[in-house]
Amino acid sequence: MNAKEYITANSDRFYRELFSLLRIPSISDKPSHKGDMLACAKRWAELLLEAGVDKAEIMPTSANPVVFASKTVNDNAPTVLVYGHYDVMPVEPLELWKSDPFEPEIRDGRIWARGADDDKGQSFIQVKGFEAALKSGLLQCNVKFLLEGGEEIGSPGLEDFCRENKDLLKSDVILVSDTSMVAKETPSITTGLRGLAYWEIEVTGPNRDLHSGIFGGAVANPINILCKMIADITDKDGRITIPHFYDDVEEVSTIEREMLAEVPHSDEAYAEAIGVKSLFGEKGYTTLERTAIRPTFDVCGIWGGYTAEGSKTVLPSKATAKVSSRLVPHQQHEKISKLFIDYIERIAPDYVKVKVTPMHGGESYVCPIDLPAYKAAEKAYTKAFEKKPLAVRRGGSIPIIASFEKILGTKTVLMGFGLESNAIHSPNENHQIEVFEKGIEAVIEFYREFGK
Amino acid sequence: MNAKEYITANSDRFYRELFSLLRIPSISDKPSHKGDMLACAKRWAELLLEAGVDKAEIMPTSANPVVFASKTVNDNAPTVLVYGHYDVMPVEPLELWKSDPFEPEIRDGRIWARGADDDKGQSFIQVKGFEAALKSGLLQCNVKFLLEGGEEIGSPGLEDFCRENKDLLKSDVILVSDTSMVAKETPSITTGLRGLAYWEIEVTGPNRDLHSGIFGGAVANPINILCKMIADITDKDGRITIPHFYDDVEEVSTIEREMLAEVPHSDEAYAEAIGVKSLFGEKGYTTLERTAIRPTFDVCGIWGGYTAEGSKTVLPSKATAKVSSRLVPHQQHEKISKLFIDYIERIAPDYVKVKVTPMHGGESYVCPIDLPAYKAAEKAYTKAFEKKPLAVRRGGSIPIIASFEKILGTKTVLMGFGLESNAIHSPNENHQIEVFEKGIEAVIEFYREFGK
Repeated sequence: MNAKEYITANSDRFYRELFSLLRIPSISDKPSHKGDMLACAKRWAELLLEAGVDKAEIMPTSANPVVFASKTVNDNAPTVLVYGHYDVMPVEPLELWKSDPFEPEIRDGRIWARGADDDKGQSFIQVKGFEAALKSGLLQCNVKFLLEGGEEIGSPGLEDFCRENKDLLKSDVILVSDTSMVAKETPSITTGLRGLAYWEIEVTGPNRDLHSGIFGGAVANPINILCKMIADITDKDGRITIPHFYDDVEEVSTIEREMLAEVPHSDEAYAEAIGVKSLFGEKGYTTLERTAIRPTFDVCGIWGGYTAEGSKTVLPSKATAKVSSRLVPHQQHEKISKLFIDYIERIAPDYVKVKVTPMHGGESYVCPIDLPAYKAAEKAYTKAFEKKPLAVRRGGSIPIIASFEKILGTKTVLMGFGLESNAIHSPNENHQIEVFEKGIEAVIEFYREFGK
Repeated sequence: MNAKEYITANSDRFYRELFSLLRIPSISDKPSHKGDMLACAKRWAELLLEAGVDKAEIMPTSANPVVFASKTVNDNAPTVLVYGHYDVMPVEPLELWKSDPFEPEIRDGRIWARGADDDKGQSFIQVKGFEAALKSGLLQCNVKFLLEGGEEIGSPGLEDFCRENKDLLKSDVILVSDTSMVAKETPSITTGLRGLAYWEIEVTGPNRDLHSGIFGGAVANPINILCKMIADITDKDGRITIPHFYDDVEEVSTIEREMLAEVPHSDEAYAEAIGVKSLFGEKGYTTLERTAIRPTFDVCGIWGGYTAEGSKTVLPSKATAKVSSRLVPHQQHEKISKLFIDYIERIAPDYVKVKVTPMHGGESYVCPIDLPAYKAAEKAYTKAFEKKPLAVRRGGSIPIIASFEKILGTKTVLMGFGLESNAIHSPNENHQIEVFEKGIEAVIEFYREFGK
């Protein structure tokens, strides 16, 4: 039985197994889901054993536990470490989901559920690719699996776990399926990821909500002040105004910018797909550059004062925003985080109290395209998708990838099989079955190529 | 029995009666409290009858019903119309209340409950002043009462009710107890009120929440845009930048500004009382001027994106703010409302959709201090508080007062007995018992004076 036949013969079981993972609401961001995290780790350990690993265990970290599994085929063969994560994003706003986020279903050739892509679905592609390669006698590498439970909240505890388990995690390359391709018809491999810094800004004015008639005009309104501070962080050209913010930003070469320009893209189609009349971003850069090689500043959430129905007049006591920056190569998230905090505290007027709390952060990552594992992945995609994949930098962040390089000294190849239409982090997350099966095929091919 | 003795002899009953009103959560802003509105109106009608009116009835309007009651002592005597409102503000944030907002209690010489001042408590002072004057044989005026159920949401239906019931509401002066004094030791009568305009601004960017890594940098973030629009509405001198906003603002005379400057006031004490390090307001004006004779722009509430615990990264689809302006004499709220909407729609960039919804509004009001009823009120305060009251303009808004003048042709005297520390519209609303009883005394004295 060849690999493709193996997939077809076993697909019903594959979906049953995947659904059993998707049903577990392993939302790392919410402490109330602690029990679901362990349940999900246990289910992964069972599935890895069924897939054929020699051993699978749940190992503690200072945060959620990790699942570690390994299969040794030959002590002299190269070793691949597959990294993924079993935690998922929150599902709000729930009313926008067409079906229950934690009751997966197949409609229109897609699997619909929170985690269908990010990252239960994509990690599952890796595990089933491994299983199929093993059962078809194609596996010429030793394989290790590391699945963590905190990627969506900055992988707490995982750096320490890596430092304490360097030998256990030793490998020749790390494979990660947690990124997207340009399109189903335009396969691509992500060669760069942005870093991330995230803060909460709390502005406190008066010690209680005040009557806006009696006090209005004489007391600074913390929402007005917060809006002014946020407004000042970007200028009309879409540039971030924080002094020294761009100091370390990598100036991407003309060659690389030209390569990026080759990616099929239409601003009109892009704008239409997300329902906006026109796009806005940093002056002097294309859409693909803005999302891949340039840093950003986005407000992720804001709240303050009266937010219920009706028209209560109030001069509120407090206003809060969650804000984040995507970072590019050479920008260190800790340095940027400090720059930001210093800046906000410096511009904060003395008629309000301003508190900036750094949340999670991570560095950016670049994968060289002459890496043997990259070349193997390129061939694998070419076989599975019948087209040579483009090498493109993407805008998302997987902070732990940079940490793997720093701590374990190992490069990562980002064998992602997502699509923009998969709506990760959004309502109605999904995964196309066609891509799912081609992904498994690509993983099998990777093992065949890399084992040579 | 003189008036003071009457108050002392009946105070236990007074508080029992007041508490029965305060226990009804008559929040006009929340449709779910519809039943409480009627219950509160009914309770008022009962209490008015017990106080001695000839008749009290609940009359429908297009919104909440009004309570109308009247007492005729002499067809040739002057007629006073007492206006008040039985609706109260919402109570959020509930966790800041030291006791249940709808289970009144007496602590530290104060009554604590939502509505203890605004306006059940203050209306109750009027009703008990009337009762005491009547029972002590001092009432030389005919008295009408009009209590409405929508003052906190812009008095919907009340203008129409006035237009349809001009004869019923005919009077020589309207008395309203719904404002505050400078201090217990500095009695004052409000001679001016600001108007109000209120809007909801909704900014929509992409048609769904987007991944801020994948899309961030290329798509305008609606929260960033909303913040920029709000930030631009006021400048660094605290002035509103909307073109023509100040066109109709009354230039207050030097004499009146000098009178306002006589009001005992300390910026330091004012700032300390509300817990801010320093004050901020329009350049060129004092704190008292900023809150009394100048218009304002305040954000009452804002929300958008991820506002729960943790650090979810998201490029949100939508951001919303509730904003309001206090207006001063000659500024017409409908004109200002249109100016604002036109301005926001004009500055809205085409990469987002902006919708501005006008909410309630009202005109400002000025009471001349040579009005006979004002002079009677002045004497009444002087007797009850043992000090001549200051005539001051205040920053709050009671839009219906301007409508009374327009529709009924009758001036209003604002016999308010509130204090800044009463925390109206805020958690822990309260009313000092000492002022409450002096207020009743002042109302009795008003009837004695005005009846002459």
